[in-house]
Amino acid sequence: MSTVTAVVAQITQSLDGYVTGPDDGPGKGLGEGGERLHYWVFNGPWSYGEAPSGEASGVDKEILDEGVGRTGAMIGGRSTYEAAEAWGGENPWGLAFFILTHRTEDEPSNGAFTFVSGLESALEQARAAAGGKDVGIMGGADTIRQALAGGYLDELVVTIAPVVLGGGKRLFEDFDRSVDLQQVEARQSDWATHLRYRVKK
Amino acid sequence: MSTVTAVVAQITQSLDGYVTGPDDGPGKGLGEGGERLHYWVFNGPWSYGEAPSGEASGVDKEILDEGVGRTGAMIGGRSTYEAAEAWGGENPWGLAFFILTHRTEDEPSNGAFTFVSGLESALEQARAAAGGKDVGIMGGADTIRQALAGGYLDELVVTIAPVVLGGGKRLFEDFDRSVDLQQVEARQSDWATHLRYRVKK
Repeated sequence: MSTVTAVVAQITQSLDGYVTGPDDGPGKGLGEGGERLHYWVFNGPWSYGEAPSGEASGVDKEILDEGVGRTGAMIGGRSTYEAAEAWGGENPWGLAFFILTHRTEDEPSNGAFTFVSGLESALEQARAAAGGKDVGIMGGADTIRQALAGGYLDELVVTIAPVVLGGGKRLFEDFDRSVDLQQVEARQSDWATHLRYRVKK
Repeated sequence: MSTVTAVVAQITQSLDGYVTGPDDGPGKGLGEGGERLHYWVFNGPWSYGEAPSGEASGVDKEILDEGVGRTGAMIGGRSTYEAAEAWGGENPWGLAFFILTHRTEDEPSNGAFTFVSGLESALEQARAAAGGKDVGIMGGADTIRQALAGGYLDELVVTIAPVVLGGGKRLFEDFDRSVDLQQVEARQSDWATHLRYRVKK
């Protein structure tokens, strides 16, 4: 197959660089005020109290649809898996989905997820499963930092929500390497600005 | 005059949120790798070794020209003034330029700069001097944070350079407030992405 598989990470951060608000965690979603990061996913304000009723539209929908269309396998971190409460035990992507964890023995028996103990192994398996499409890294931030530091990342899509959170977990927390990026595109919707970069190697 | 003076801060940061690289300071410019933040100002790579020969073009030139055209008075922090080595003792803007400092007695006698000891006083004097145009806040980051925290900022223009610096001074370091922003525009050049926000109050 002539298609080259790219490894693409995609995440949303605030203008001050946080991917969660303060005090996030299981049962607390993305922390205090963190739901504002994802207004773009639901086409406007929503809150943790009830299930969001909106759906992405316009540029936001295009970004989501393009991501899904290009992706052949997904990698996520264990903390993201836990924060999402394992998506109710069902694979949310309909794609091979590899969860990075030190406790692979926790893998559910229904086959919805493949638990893998290291990023290199996860990438190898994801490439094989992707069928020439991209391998997506959905986060959390630590998984994306690890992929960037290891030189595995081909593209980085950072969506910037129009909010200063003033606290939380930073995408680049403790990341002490310098990386040159090449701009691919910037697209702005009513709710966010989507920046796509190619990682220079 | 019917024109409303807006207070507008404008600064360039890396994708990981730094406005300088590691180890910046007088004689060291914007620190290690920090010159990459400003490729957009000089239309490409430059280094501290020699004076940049390029000039902003296209979108970048438009952003600079629009900023200059809208601005009637400027405010800068003392550390920025020192880092720029007082622009050789000459006011670089041709506009009333207020420098925030605790040591107002250091004001040069040639009238190029007005040293002011507090942000509120600087804003009051700058508004009076701006003749209905905007008051610009050029940084440093601490001055912008102070203006944002105090509720003085009407617009924030953040230029994002396509680089991860891995260290330096963060625009939002120790800023622990939450602020909602309204997107005004996103414009991308070959060298940077310029994001303009209105501060919601």
